[in-house]
Amino acid sequence: MLIHELTTQECWRMLARNHIAHLACARDNQPYIVPVRVDLDGEFLYGYATLGRKIEWMRTNPLVCLECDELTTDRQWATVIVFGHYQELSHTPENEGARQVAERLFQKHPMWWEPATLPLAGHERRPPIVFRIHVDSLTGRRTLQEASTPERPEPTPGSERRRWPTRMWRRLIGD
Amino acid sequence: MLIHELTTQECWRMLARNHIAHLACARDNQPYIVPVRVDLDGEFLYGYATLGRKIEWMRTNPLVCLECDELTTDRQWATVIVFGHYQELSHTPENEGARQVAERLFQKHPMWWEPATLPLAGHERRPPIVFRIHVDSLTGRRTLQEASTPERPEPTPGSERRRWPTRMWRRLIGD
Repeated sequence: MLIHELTTQECWRMLARNHIAHLACARDNQPYIVPVRVDLDGEFLYGYATLGRKIEWMRTNPLVCLECDELTTDRQWATVIVFGHYQELSHTPENEGARQVAERLFQKHPMWWEPATLPLAGHERRPPIVFRIHVDSLTGRRTLQEASTPERPEPTPGSERRRWPTRMWRRLIGD
Repeated sequence: MLIHELTTQECWRMLARNHIAHLACARDNQPYIVPVRVDLDGEFLYGYATLGRKIEWMRTNPLVCLECDELTTDRQWATVIVFGHYQELSHTPENEGARQVAERLFQKHPMWWEPATLPLAGHERRPPIVFRIHVDSLTGRRTLQEASTPERPEPTPGSERRRWPTRMWRRLIGD
């Protein structure tokens, strides 16, 4: 197995075809990470959420990092890392065009309002906040299979009895 | 669909049975996020990597956030968020016990040294750096199905033609 850098174009294509990602923000150098649903249009990833920690933190510090990955097998995967910044698309005239883009993207998925806007049980439903992430830079890596077995360290006695991939990984890849 | 908080015990159990997670660190309030493989033992998540951005950043600022999730369907999922801090387990006498714990955990998976220690094509293989994340706090949420359909906004005309889950989601859940 070899690991290769993705080209910028390959990174953009991965962002375009994947909608479930992980988004990290930070406050006072404490990072915070959540799964999000996003849609790419131009240089922006559009998303929505209700007011909570991640929105509060991104309002304070718009620097974010977003990661999306494609797991085919444990030895065949690709991942893209985006450095970007957060822009909230509040109801103002200057945001109208961007909000229309967001609405068009979200309507590709009729349940788009759920679950990002679902409250915790016993809480009131809150209106969704629409935002977009500007992609400032992006990099990616993928595995590439080799015909020959790569050089590897000596196995520890007994370790060969156990198997990759893990239970979670197997579930994800349907193995 | 309802969203419920997980109990602390449920969060620990999720951490124990999942080994693929997403780890976020931060430097100068810029977050960075990567997929990692970790193993829980006591209050620590053990992992390994080669020297690179995430190790350099966590050496500078040990505050991290780790997220793991279980996706069964688009309407049945659970996620756990850990706030913690990074401890590098270098070859020193005081780390010997923790390194032995790490070695025991990693050997459950004979390919543990790969792919976290694989270099980019054309680069030298570097020795793995062993670390652990101390779990300072953890919270989690999961969906809970309701018998009745929850109240929802009026659908936008035409939107009902499209379907959740997304292609990526379908691939992950094997739908």
